[in-house]
Amino acid sequence: MTPKQERAVRTRERLVASAAEAFDRHGFTAASLTAISRSAGVSNGALHFHFESKEALAVAVEAAAAARVGALAEVAAGSEGPAIQALVDASHRLVRLLREDVVVRAGFRLGGDLSASVVDSLPLLWHRGVVGLLDKARREGALTAGVSPGDAAAAVVAVVVGCDVLARTDEEWLSSGVLAGFWRLLLPRLAAGPVESGQLTCGAA
Amino acid sequence: MTPKQERAVRTRERLVASAAEAFDRHGFTAASLTAISRSAGVSNGALHFHFESKEALAVAVEAAAAARVGALAEVAAGSEGPAIQALVDASHRLVRLLREDVVVRAGFRLGGDLSASVVDSLPLLWHRGVVGLLDKARREGALTAGVSPGDAAAAVVAVVVGCDVLARTDEEWLSSGVLAGFWRLLLPRLAAGPVESGQLTCGAA
Repeated sequence: MTPKQERAVRTRERLVASAAEAFDRHGFTAASLTAISRSAGVSNGALHFHFESKEALAVAVEAAAAARVGALAEVAAGSEGPAIQALVDASHRLVRLLREDVVVRAGFRLGGDLSASVVDSLPLLWHRGVVGLLDKARREGALTAGVSPGDAAAAVVAVVVGCDVLARTDEEWLSSGVLAGFWRLLLPRLAAGPVESGQLTCGAA
Repeated sequence: MTPKQERAVRTRERLVASAAEAFDRHGFTAASLTAISRSAGVSNGALHFHFESKEALAVAVEAAAAARVGALAEVAAGSEGPAIQALVDASHRLVRLLREDVVVRAGFRLGGDLSASVVDSLPLLWHRGVVGLLDKARREGALTAGVSPGDAAAAVVAVVVGCDVLARTDEEWLSSGVLAGFWRLLLPRLAAGPVESGQLTCGAA
């Protein structure tokens, strides 16, 4: 890249980060483009050079968040240990991203605001990753007989999405402690033997 | 009440219902007071006679929703059967309200939008009811040893809140089937004996 291209890439990244901050704090509708360009340290004109509308900025935030959540799901899918442990670890990594990474947090929350998103919604991406890991666990013979992988996937997805929403009024909901409590509850039902023998752990890695 | 007072009560109720529709569809920020008064069939002046601001309308929606969720929790707390079954049934009733009652749905969703609400948030009210029922179950000796009532309460609350959010893009998440699947997963962990002997059921009553 030429120095000019590099500058453009950095400007674009700063705009996406500023937009994520604004969407996370005020929601899509109330977020102001002027405030976004100001906090990114660029002119309104530069903003419109990179993004033709607030919708385009929101799509860029969702795409950046999707890349991070997709990477997390890919690492989990490629993990060599038991798939159930990879799922527990991935959920902790996701909750940590929701706590610490404003792009991921805003991306998750935009899913509900934008009626026609051009990228897959973040919860859908997470759901697909969870279904894949539980299917792998089933093939490993690691799921307790009678447990439906579909029921388990829905519970894991809904709990993370629910904790994210509840954390807007009490951030404790996105602590690793709350998530570990969920796994203490669920793991013995999913895979009784390995939990009792200490092969699986509920906490953040 | 005089006929004039009765009319005022009905006007107020219509405004709360119209506001709930608008908040549910567009969110608090984007909802328009003019559209709300028009769909309630009253003048802008009448709206401002009853509610001094959009915030005041939102508080009224939250209070109306809180009354319905509070009633549901009270019925569950006073139930004579096993507390765990009362909890399963209450969760199905709440999910049905979220599906069918726009005031409850809007009330739940406003919780995240209003930074300083004067009424307890709906999820908090639901959390309190769930904690009470699980505590009753513990006193009945119905909870499996080693299960933390706090972990179980957090999971039940987060799952319902999560399903509500996920239903904005796919309404299947608020079906009684998804919730029954969650209970099929969780109940054998909470109370193995009564589930095996068929004393507890996972579906909607």
